[in-house]
Amino acid sequence: MKHARIAVDGLIHNGVETEAGIKLENGRVVQENDVVWLPPVQPQTVFTLGLNFADHAAELSFKEAPKEPLVFLKGPNTFIGHRGKTYRPSDVTFMHYECELAVVIGKAGKNISKEDAYDYVGGYTVANDYALRDYLENYYRPNLRVKNRDTCTPIGPWFVDKEDVEDPMNLKLRTLVNGEVVQEGTTADMIFSVPDLIEYLSSFMTLNKGDIILTGTPKGSVDTKVGDEVITEVEGVGRLVNTIVGEEADIKQ
Amino acid sequence: MKHARIAVDGLIHNGVETEAGIKLENGRVVQENDVVWLPPVQPQTVFTLGLNFADHAAELSFKEAPKEPLVFLKGPNTFIGHRGKTYRPSDVTFMHYECELAVVIGKAGKNISKEDAYDYVGGYTVANDYALRDYLENYYRPNLRVKNRDTCTPIGPWFVDKEDVEDPMNLKLRTLVNGEVVQEGTTADMIFSVPDLIEYLSSFMTLNKGDIILTGTPKGSVDTKVGDEVITEVEGVGRLVNTIVGEEADIKQ
Repeated sequence: MKHARIAVDGLIHNGVETEAGIKLENGRVVQENDVVWLPPVQPQTVFTLGLNFADHAAELSFKEAPKEPLVFLKGPNTFIGHRGKTYRPSDVTFMHYECELAVVIGKAGKNISKEDAYDYVGGYTVANDYALRDYLENYYRPNLRVKNRDTCTPIGPWFVDKEDVEDPMNLKLRTLVNGEVVQEGTTADMIFSVPDLIEYLSSFMTLNKGDIILTGTPKGSVDTKVGDEVITEVEGVGRLVNTIVGEEADIKQ
Repeated sequence: MKHARIAVDGLIHNGVETEAGIKLENGRVVQENDVVWLPPVQPQTVFTLGLNFADHAAELSFKEAPKEPLVFLKGPNTFIGHRGKTYRPSDVTFMHYECELAVVIGKAGKNISKEDAYDYVGGYTVANDYALRDYLENYYRPNLRVKNRDTCTPIGPWFVDKEDVEDPMNLKLRTLVNGEVVQEGTTADMIFSVPDLIEYLSSFMTLNKGDIILTGTPKGSVDTKVGDEVITEVEGVGRLVNTIVGEEADIKQ
Protein backbone atom coordinates (compact mmCIF):
# COMPACT_ATOMS: atom_id res chain seq x y z
CA MET A 1 0.00 0.00 0.00
CA LYS A 2 1.09 3.56 -0.72
CA HIS A 3 0.23 6.11 1.96
CA ALA A 4 0.06 9.89 1.62
CA ARG A 5 -0.26 12.65 4.18
CA ILE A 6 -2.12 15.57 2.64
CA ALA A 7 -3.80 18.83 3.57
CA VAL A 8 -7.23 19.43 2.07
CA ASP A 9 -10.10 21.72 3.03
CA GLY A 10 -8.59 22.79 6.32
CA LEU A 11 -7.46 19.44 7.69
CA ILE A 12 -4.53 17.08 7.50
CA HIS A 13 -5.53 13.61 6.32
CA ASN A 14 -3.90 10.27 5.72
CA GLY A 15 -4.82 8.67 2.44
CA VAL A 16 -3.92 5.68 0.31
CA GLU A 17 -3.36 5.37 -3.41
CA THR A 18 -6.27 3.93 -5.39
CA GLU A 19 -7.00 3.87 -9.10
CA ALA A 20 -9.65 6.55 -8.61
CA GLY A 21 -7.37 8.89 -6.66
CA ILE A 22 -6.25 9.31 -3.05
CA LYS A 23 -8.73 7.67 -0.70
CA LEU A 24 -9.00 9.33 2.72
CA GLU A 25 -9.81 7.65 6.04
CA ASN A 26 -13.47 8.63 5.69
CA GLY A 27 -13.79 7.05 2.26
CA ARG A 28 -13.70 10.30 0.30
CA VAL A 29 -11.51 10.22 -2.81
CA VAL A 30 -9.50 13.33 -3.77
CA GLN A 31 -7.33 14.07 -6.76
CA GLU A 32 -3.64 14.73 -6.35
CA ASN A 33 -3.78 18.19 -7.90
CA ASP A 34 -6.46 19.36 -5.46
CA VAL A 35 -4.41 18.85 -2.29
CA VAL A 36 -1.20 19.99 -0.62
CA TRP A 37 1.18 17.09 -0.21
CA LEU A 38 2.98 16.96 3.12
CA PRO A 39 5.98 14.81 4.00
CA PRO A 40 4.45 11.30 4.22
CA VAL A 41 6.16 10.61 7.52
CA GLN A 42 6.86 13.08 10.29
CA PRO A 43 10.57 12.71 10.76
CA GLN A 44 12.01 12.01 14.18
CA THR A 45 15.75 11.59 13.91
CA VAL A 46 16.87 11.80 10.29
CA PHE A 47 20.18 10.21 9.39
CA THR A 48 21.81 11.27 6.16
CA LEU A 49 24.55 9.38 4.38
CA GLY A 50 27.42 11.23 2.81
CA LEU A 51 29.39 9.66 -0.02
CA ASN A 52 27.62 6.30 -0.04
CA PHE A 53 28.21 5.80 -3.78
CA ALA A 54 31.82 5.53 -4.94
CA ASP A 55 31.18 7.38 -8.21
CA HIS A 56 29.64 10.33 -6.35
CA ALA A 57 32.57 10.52 -3.90
CA ALA A 58 34.96 10.64 -6.87
CA GLU A 59 32.85 13.33 -8.55
CA LEU A 60 33.20 15.50 -5.41
CA SER A 61 36.99 15.04 -5.54
CA PHE A 62 37.25 12.85 -2.46
CA LYS A 63 40.19 10.59 -3.13
CA GLU A 64 38.69 7.64 -1.37
CA ALA A 65 35.22 6.64 -0.25
CA PRO A 66 34.63 6.45 3.52
CA LYS A 67 35.69 3.26 5.30
CA GLU A 68 32.67 3.34 7.56
CA PRO A 69 29.29 4.98 7.01
CA LEU A 70 29.57 8.77 7.03
CA VAL A 71 26.40 9.86 8.77
CA PHE A 72 25.03 13.19 9.92
CA LEU A 73 21.66 14.46 11.10
CA LYS A 74 19.14 16.79 9.44
CA GLY A 75 16.69 19.09 11.22
CA PRO A 76 12.91 19.23 10.71
CA ASN A 77 13.18 22.68 9.10
CA THR A 78 14.56 21.05 5.97
CA PHE A 79 11.55 18.88 4.99
CA ILE A 80 8.81 19.68 2.53
CA GLY A 81 6.34 17.49 0.65
CA HIS A 82 5.77 16.52 -2.97
CA ARG A 83 5.15 19.47 -5.31
CA GLY A 84 6.66 21.79 -2.71
CA LYS A 85 9.05 24.63 -3.39
CA THR A 86 12.68 24.72 -2.39
CA TYR A 87 14.44 28.06 -2.26
CA ARG A 88 17.86 28.56 -3.72
CA PRO A 89 19.85 30.69 -1.28
CA SER A 90 21.29 33.87 -2.77
CA ASP A 91 24.77 33.17 -1.36
CA VAL A 92 25.52 30.05 -3.45
CA THR A 93 26.83 29.33 -6.93
CA PHE A 94 26.24 25.56 -7.05
CA MET A 95 23.14 23.78 -5.75
CA HIS A 96 22.65 20.16 -6.75
CA TYR A 97 19.82 17.66 -6.24
CA GLU A 98 20.47 14.23 -4.76
CA CYS A 99 17.99 11.47 -5.58
CA GLU A 100 17.87 9.04 -2.64
CA LEU A 101 15.99 6.06 -1.30
CA ALA A 102 14.68 6.99 2.17
CA VAL A 103 14.27 4.11 4.63
CA VAL A 104 11.69 4.58 7.40
CA ILE A 105 12.18 2.61 10.60
CA GLY A 106 9.06 0.65 11.56
CA LYS A 107 9.88 -0.47 15.09
CA ALA A 108 12.47 0.48 17.68
CA GLY A 109 15.61 -1.56 18.17
CA LYS A 110 19.25 -1.56 19.22
CA ASN A 111 22.09 -3.91 18.28
CA ILE A 112 20.21 -5.11 15.22
CA SER A 113 22.13 -7.57 13.03
CA LYS A 114 22.26 -7.27 9.25
CA GLU A 115 20.29 -10.47 9.03
CA ASP A 116 17.41 -9.03 11.08
CA ALA A 117 17.60 -5.50 9.67
CA TYR A 118 14.53 -5.62 7.43
CA ASP A 119 12.38 -6.65 10.39
CA TYR A 120 12.92 -3.09 11.65
CA VAL A 121 12.04 -1.34 8.40
CA GLY A 122 8.50 0.01 8.05
CA GLY A 123 8.73 1.19 4.48
CA TYR A 124 10.28 3.55 1.97
CA THR A 125 9.90 6.92 0.38
CA VAL A 126 11.87 9.17 -1.99
CA ALA A 127 14.03 12.10 -0.89
CA ASN A 128 15.80 14.84 -2.76
CA ASP A 129 18.65 15.81 -0.45
CA TYR A 130 19.78 19.11 -2.01
CA ALA A 131 23.37 20.16 -1.33
CA LEU A 132 24.98 23.59 -1.54
CA ARG A 133 28.35 22.74 -2.93
CA ASP A 134 29.91 26.10 -2.10
CA TYR A 135 30.09 25.23 1.58
CA LEU A 136 31.40 21.69 1.23
CA GLU A 137 34.64 21.76 3.17
CA ASN A 138 37.74 19.70 2.89
CA TYR A 139 36.73 17.39 5.68
CA TYR A 140 34.09 14.77 5.15
CA ARG A 141 31.15 15.70 7.34
CA PRO A 142 29.24 18.62 5.78
CA ASN A 143 28.31 21.67 7.77
CA LEU A 144 24.79 22.96 8.30
CA ARG A 145 25.02 25.43 5.44
CA VAL A 146 25.44 22.59 2.94
CA LYS A 147 22.60 20.38 4.11
CA ASN A 148 20.35 22.07 6.64
CA ARG A 149 18.75 25.03 4.85
CA ASP A 150 15.00 25.49 5.12
CA THR A 151 13.04 23.46 2.52
CA CYS A 152 16.17 21.73 1.18
CA THR A 153 14.82 18.17 1.56
CA PRO A 154 11.69 17.38 -0.46
CA ILE A 155 10.36 13.96 0.60
CA GLY A 156 7.49 11.79 -0.69
CA PRO A 157 5.03 11.60 -2.34
CA TRP A 158 4.20 8.24 -0.77
CA PHE A 159 5.22 6.17 2.17
CA VAL A 160 5.32 2.68 0.64
CA ASP A 161 4.93 -0.38 2.88
CA LYS A 162 8.04 -2.54 2.79
CA GLU A 163 6.01 -5.51 1.60
CA ASP A 164 5.44 -3.64 -1.65
CA VAL A 165 9.13 -3.12 -2.42
CA GLU A 166 10.58 -6.40 -3.59
CA ASP A 167 14.31 -5.67 -3.33
CA PRO A 168 15.31 -2.28 -1.91
CA MET A 169 18.92 -2.98 -2.90
CA ASN A 170 18.04 -3.20 -6.59
CA LEU A 171 16.05 -0.08 -7.44
CA LYS A 172 16.75 2.38 -10.22
CA LEU A 173 17.36 5.99 -9.14
CA ARG A 174 16.78 8.79 -11.62
CA THR A 175 16.63 12.59 -11.63
CA LEU A 176 15.14 14.81 -14.32
CA VAL A 177 15.63 18.57 -14.53
CA ASN A 178 13.05 20.26 -16.75
CA GLY A 179 12.30 16.90 -18.34
CA GLU A 180 15.90 15.96 -19.12
CA VAL A 181 17.50 12.96 -17.41
CA VAL A 182 20.56 14.23 -15.49
CA GLN A 183 21.24 11.45 -12.98
CA GLU A 184 20.85 7.69 -13.22
CA GLY A 185 21.97 5.01 -10.84
CA THR A 186 20.85 2.05 -8.78
CA THR A 187 20.66 1.29 -5.08
CA ALA A 188 22.70 -1.84 -5.93
CA ASP A 189 25.75 0.46 -6.06
CA MET A 190 25.55 1.68 -2.46
CA ILE A 191 28.82 1.20 -0.58
CA PHE A 192 26.92 0.49 2.65
CA SER A 193 23.60 -1.32 2.07
CA VAL A 194 20.39 -0.75 3.99
CA PRO A 195 21.12 -3.72 6.32
CA ASP A 196 24.71 -2.45 6.79
CA LEU A 197 23.41 0.97 7.82
CA ILE A 198 20.83 -0.38 10.26
CA GLU A 199 23.43 -2.64 11.87
CA TYR A 200 25.95 0.20 12.08
CA LEU A 201 23.65 2.86 13.55
CA SER A 202 21.90 0.54 15.98
CA SER A 203 25.26 -0.72 17.26
CA PHE A 204 25.69 2.52 19.23
CA MET A 205 22.20 4.02 19.57
CA THR A 206 18.55 3.06 19.56
CA LEU A 207 16.72 3.41 16.27
CA ASN A 208 13.16 4.55 16.93
CA LYS A 209 9.97 4.11 14.96
CA GLY A 210 9.71 6.96 12.47
CA ASP A 211 13.46 7.54 12.20
CA ILE A 212 14.56 7.96 8.61
CA ILE A 213 17.77 7.00 6.85
CA LEU A 214 18.58 8.88 3.65
CA THR A 215 20.86 6.39 1.93
CA GLY A 216 22.98 8.59 -0.35
CA THR A 217 23.07 9.46 -4.02
CA PRO A 218 24.99 8.27 -7.10
CA LYS A 219 27.02 10.37 -9.52
CA GLY A 220 25.43 13.08 -11.62
CA SER A 221 25.62 16.46 -9.89
CA VAL A 222 24.47 19.38 -12.01
CA ASP A 223 23.81 22.90 -10.81
CA THR A 224 20.12 23.81 -10.63
CA LYS A 225 18.63 27.26 -11.07
CA VAL A 226 15.61 29.23 -10.00
CA GLY A 227 12.58 28.03 -11.96
CA ASP A 228 13.87 24.51 -12.56
CA GLU A 229 11.48 21.61 -12.06
CA VAL A 230 13.38 18.75 -10.46
CA ILE A 231 11.91 15.24 -10.40
CA THR A 232 13.57 12.50 -8.37
CA GLU A 233 12.39 8.94 -8.95
CA VAL A 234 13.01 5.70 -7.12
CA GLU A 235 11.72 2.68 -9.02
CA GLY A 236 8.56 1.31 -7.43
CA VAL A 237 8.64 3.85 -4.59
CA GLY A 238 7.74 7.18 -6.10
CA ARG A 239 8.24 10.17 -8.33
CA LEU A 240 8.87 13.32 -6.31
CA VAL A 241 8.33 16.70 -7.99
CA ASN A 242 9.97 19.87 -6.72
CA THR A 243 10.41 23.41 -8.01
CA ILE A 244 13.26 25.75 -7.17
CA VAL A 245 12.35 29.32 -6.28
CA GLY A 246 14.51 32.32 -5.71
CA GLU A 247 13.11 34.12 -2.77
CA GLU A 248 12.12 32.72 0.53
CA ALA A 249 8.92 34.74 0.38
CA ASP A 250 7.82 32.49 -2.47
CA ILE A 251 8.06 29.27 -0.52
CA LYS A 252 4.87 29.82 1.47
CA GLN A 253 2.35 27.37 0.09
CA MET B 1 10.18 31.93 36.98
CA LYS B 2 11.72 28.45 36.90
CA HIS B 3 9.66 25.80 35.12
CA ALA B 4 9.94 22.02 35.44
CA ARG B 5 8.41 19.19 33.43
CA ILE B 6 7.90 16.21 35.69
CA ALA B 7 6.17 12.85 35.81
CA VAL B 8 4.21 12.08 38.95
CA ASP B 9 1.43 9.60 39.71
CA GLY B 10 0.91 8.55 36.12
CA LEU B 11 0.89 11.93 34.41
CA ILE B 12 3.29 14.48 32.98
CA HIS B 13 2.92 17.90 34.58
CA ASN B 14 4.39 21.32 34.21
CA GLY B 15 5.37 22.93 37.48
CA VAL B 16 7.11 26.02 38.80
CA GLU B 17 9.62 26.43 41.57
CA THR B 18 8.22 27.74 44.85
CA GLU B 19 9.67 27.84 48.34
CA ALA B 20 7.35 24.99 49.38
CA GLY B 21 8.31 22.75 46.44
CA ILE B 22 7.27 22.33 42.81
CA LYS B 23 3.81 23.78 42.25
CA LEU B 24 1.79 22.02 39.54
CA GLU B 25 -0.82 23.59 37.27
CA ASN B 26 -3.60 22.40 39.59
CA GLY B 27 -2.04 24.04 42.63
CA ARG B 28 -0.70 20.85 44.16
CA VAL B 29 2.84 21.11 45.53
CA VAL B 30 5.20 18.14 45.17
CA GLN B 31 8.73 17.59 46.43
CA GLU B 32 11.59 17.12 44.04
CA ASN B 33 12.54 13.69 45.34
CA ASP B 34 9.03 12.32 44.78
CA VAL B 35 8.93 12.89 41.02
CA VAL B 36 10.71 11.92 37.83
CA TRP B 37 12.29 14.95 36.21
CA LEU B 38 11.93 15.10 32.44
CA PRO B 39 13.81 17.40 30.09
CA PRO B 40 12.22 20.81 30.84
CA VAL B 41 11.79 21.53 27.14
CA GLN B 42 10.96 19.07 24.41
CA PRO B 43 13.74 19.63 21.97
CA GLN B 44 13.00 20.36 18.34
CA THR B 45 16.23 21.01 16.48
CA VAL B 46 19.17 20.93 18.86
CA PHE B 47 22.35 22.73 17.81
CA THR B 48 25.54 21.81 19.58
CA LEU B 49 28.69 23.91 19.56
CA GLY B 50 32.05 22.26 19.24
CA LEU B 51 35.16 23.97 20.52
CA ASN B 52 33.49 27.23 21.58
CA PHE B 53 36.03 27.84 24.36
CA ALA B 54 39.66 28.34 23.33
CA ASP B 55 41.06 26.51 26.38
CA HIS B 56 38.91 23.43 25.62
CA ALA B 57 39.99 23.39 21.96
CA ALA B 58 43.62 23.45 23.10
CA GLU B 59 42.97 20.67 25.62
CA LEU B 60 41.63 18.46 22.79
CA SER B 61 44.82 19.16 20.78
CA PHE B 62 43.19 21.30 18.13
CA LYS B 63 45.87 23.73 17.07
CA GLU B 64 43.46 26.56 16.49
CA ALA B 65 39.93 27.36 17.52
CA PRO B 66 37.34 27.43 14.71
CA LYS B 67 37.05 30.64 12.70
CA GLU B 68 33.31 30.34 12.50
CA PRO B 69 30.91 28.52 14.80
CA LEU B 70 31.35 24.75 14.56
CA VAL B 71 27.82 23.44 14.87
CA PHE B 72 26.25 20.03 14.61
CA LEU B 73 22.86 18.53 15.49
CA LYS B 74 21.81 16.10 18.22
CA GLY B 75 18.94 13.61 18.06
CA PRO B 76 16.09 13.27 20.59
CA ASN B 77 17.40 9.86 21.72
CA THR B 78 20.18 11.65 23.59
CA PHE B 79 18.11 13.64 26.09
CA ILE B 80 17.26 12.73 29.67
CA GLY B 81 16.13 14.82 32.62
CA HIS B 82 17.61 15.81 35.97
CA ARG B 83 18.56 12.87 38.21
CA GLY B 84 18.51 10.59 35.16
CA LYS B 85 21.04 7.92 34.36
CA THR B 86 23.49 8.02 31.51
CA TYR B 87 25.08 4.79 30.36
CA ARG B 88 28.76 4.51 29.67
CA PRO B 89 29.18 2.44 26.49
CA SER B 90 31.37 -0.61 26.90
CA ASP B 91 33.43 0.27 23.80
CA VAL B 92 35.02 3.46 25.16
CA THR B 93 38.00 4.33 27.34
CA PHE B 94 37.36 8.07 27.84
CA MET B 95 33.97 9.63 28.53
CA HIS B 96 33.90 13.23 29.67
CA TYR B 97 31.12 15.56 30.87
CA GLU B 98 30.65 18.99 29.34
CA CYS B 99 28.89 21.63 31.43
CA GLU B 100 27.01 23.98 29.10
CA LEU B 101 24.56 26.83 29.08
CA ALA B 102 21.58 25.77 26.91
CA VAL B 103 19.71 28.56 25.15
CA VAL B 104 16.07 27.89 24.28
CA ILE B 105 14.59 29.83 21.36
CA GLY B 106 11.34 31.57 22.34
CA LYS B 107 10.01 32.68 18.97
CA ALA B 108 10.76 31.84 15.36
CA GLY B 109 12.97 34.04 13.24
CA LYS B 110 15.41 34.23 10.33
CA ASN B 111 18.17 36.75 9.59
CA ILE B 112 18.21 37.89 13.21
CA SER B 113 20.87 40.51 13.98
CA LYS B 114 23.10 40.30 17.05
CA GLU B 115 21.40 43.39 18.38
CA ASP B 116 17.96 41.74 18.26
CA ALA B 117 19.11 38.25 19.27
CA TYR B 118 17.80 38.24 22.83
CA ASP B 119 14.29 39.07 21.59
CA TYR B 120 14.27 35.54 20.17
CA VAL B 121 15.45 33.80 23.34
CA GLY B 122 12.78 32.24 25.56
CA GLY B 123 15.04 31.16 28.40
CA TYR B 124 17.85 28.96 29.58
CA THR B 125 18.61 25.59 31.06
CA VAL B 126 21.68 23.49 31.89
CA ALA B 127 23.03 20.68 29.72
CA ASN B 128 25.70 18.07 30.26
CA ASP B 129 26.83 17.22 26.75
CA TYR B 130 28.83 14.03 27.36
CA ALA B 131 31.49 13.16 24.77
CA LEU B 132 33.13 9.84 23.99
CA ARG B 133 36.67 10.90 23.28
CA ASP B 134 37.69 7.62 21.66
CA TYR B 135 35.73 8.46 18.54
CA LEU B 136 36.83 12.06 18.14
CA GLU B 137 38.45 12.17 14.74
CA ASN B 138 41.03 14.40 13.28
CA TYR B 139 38.53 16.61 11.56
CA TYR B 140 36.47 19.06 13.50
CA ARG B 141 32.88 17.93 13.31
CA PRO B 142 32.33 14.93 15.62
CA ASN B 143 30.63 11.78 14.44
CA LEU B 144 27.50 10.29 15.94
CA ARG B 145 29.43 7.88 18.15
CA VAL B 146 30.99 10.80 20.03
CA LYS B 147 27.85 12.81 20.69
CA ASN B 148 24.68 10.93 19.80
CA ARG B 149 24.51 7.92 22.12
CA ASP B 150 21.27 7.24 23.97
CA THR B 151 20.99 9.20 27.27
CA CYS B 152 24.22 11.14 26.66
CA THR B 153 22.68 14.59 27.16
CA PRO B 154 21.16 15.26 30.58
CA ILE B 155 19.28 18.56 30.51
CA GLY B 156 17.48 20.57 33.21
CA PRO B 157 16.35 20.67 35.95
CA TRP B 158 14.61 23.96 35.16
CA PHE B 159 13.70 26.03 32.17
CA VAL B 160 14.43 29.55 33.45
CA ASP B 161 12.66 32.51 31.85
CA LYS B 162 15.17 34.86 30.25
CA GLU B 163 13.95 37.74 32.41
CA ASP B 164 15.40 35.90 35.39
CA VAL B 165 18.92 35.62 33.98
CA GLU B 166 20.56 39.02 34.20
CA ASP B 167 23.56 38.49 31.91
CA PRO B 168 23.82 35.11 30.10
CA MET B 169 27.32 36.06 28.95
CA ASN B 170 28.63 36.31 32.49
CA LEU B 171 27.62 33.08 34.25
CA LYS B 172 29.90 30.72 36.14
CA LEU B 173 30.02 27.12 34.84
CA ARG B 174 31.09 24.35 37.17
CA THR B 175 31.18 20.53 37.19
CA LEU B 176 31.58 18.29 40.22
CA VAL B 177 32.31 14.57 40.07
CA ASN B 178 31.53 12.76 43.31
CA GLY B 179 31.61 16.10 45.11
CA GLU B 180 34.96 17.27 43.76
CA VAL B 181 35.15 20.33 41.51
CA VAL B 182 36.68 19.22 38.19
CA GLN B 183 35.69 21.97 35.77
CA GLU B 184 35.29 25.72 36.25
CA GLY B 185 34.73 28.42 33.69
CA THR B 186 32.49 31.26 32.67
CA THR B 187 30.24 31.95 29.72
CA ALA B 188 32.23 35.19 29.34
CA ASP B 189 34.96 33.08 27.70
CA MET B 190 32.86 31.79 24.80
CA ILE B 191 34.49 32.41 21.44
CA PHE B 192 31.09 32.95 19.83
CA SER B 193 28.57 34.57 22.17
CA VAL B 194 24.85 33.79 22.36
CA PRO B 195 23.99 36.74 20.07
CA ASP B 196 26.79 35.68 17.66
CA LEU B 197 25.34 32.16 17.47
CA ILE B 198 21.77 33.32 16.90
CA GLU B 199 22.90 35.69 14.16
CA TYR B 200 25.04 33.00 12.53
CA LEU B 201 22.47 30.17 12.55
CA SER B 202 19.54 32.36 11.52
CA SER B 203 21.55 33.77 8.61
CA PHE B 204 21.00 30.53 6.69
CA MET B 205 18.02 28.83 8.32
CA THR B 206 14.93 29.58 10.38
CA LEU B 207 15.25 29.18 14.12
CA ASN B 208 12.01 27.83 15.53
CA LYS B 209 10.42 28.13 18.95
CA GLY B 210 11.75 25.30 21.11
CA ASP B 211 15.03 24.94 19.24
CA ILE B 212 17.97 24.66 21.62
CA ILE B 213 21.56 25.83 21.31
CA LEU B 214 24.11 24.06 23.49
CA THR B 215 26.80 26.71 23.69
CA GLY B 216 29.95 24.69 24.36
CA THR B 217 32.12 23.89 27.36
CA PRO B 218 35.36 25.24 28.87
CA LYS B 219 38.51 23.32 29.72
CA GLY B 220 38.50 20.56 32.31
CA SER B 221 37.91 17.16 30.71
CA VAL B 222 38.31 14.22 33.06
CA ASP B 223 37.29 10.65 32.37
CA THR B 224 34.19 9.51 34.24
CA LYS B 225 33.42 6.00 35.38
CA VAL B 226 30.42 3.84 36.13
CA GLY B 227 28.93 4.89 39.48
CA ASP B 228 30.12 8.51 39.29
CA GLU B 229 27.69 11.24 40.26
CA VAL B 230 28.21 14.18 37.92
CA ILE B 231 26.75 17.59 38.76
CA THR B 232 26.83 20.39 36.19
CA GLU B 233 25.96 23.88 37.38
CA VAL B 234 25.27 27.12 35.57
CA GLU B 235 25.07 30.10 37.92
CA GLY B 236 21.49 31.24 38.39
CA VAL B 237 20.14 28.68 35.95
CA GLY B 238 20.42 25.32 37.63
CA ARG B 239 22.25 22.40 39.17
CA LEU B 240 21.83 19.25 37.08
CA VAL B 241 22.51 15.88 38.72
CA ASN B 242 23.36 12.78 36.68
CA THR B 243 24.65 9.30 37.47
CA ILE B 244 26.69 7.12 35.14
CA VAL B 245 25.66 3.48 34.85
CA GLY B 246 27.34 0.61 33.12
CA GLU B 247 24.65 -1.35 31.42
CA GLU B 248 21.93 -0.08 29.22
CA ALA B 249 19.45 -2.25 31.09
CA ASP B 250 20.03 -0.03 34.12
CA ILE B 251 18.95 3.16 32.42
CA LYS B 252 15.25 2.38 32.56
CA GLN B 253 13.77 4.69 35.19
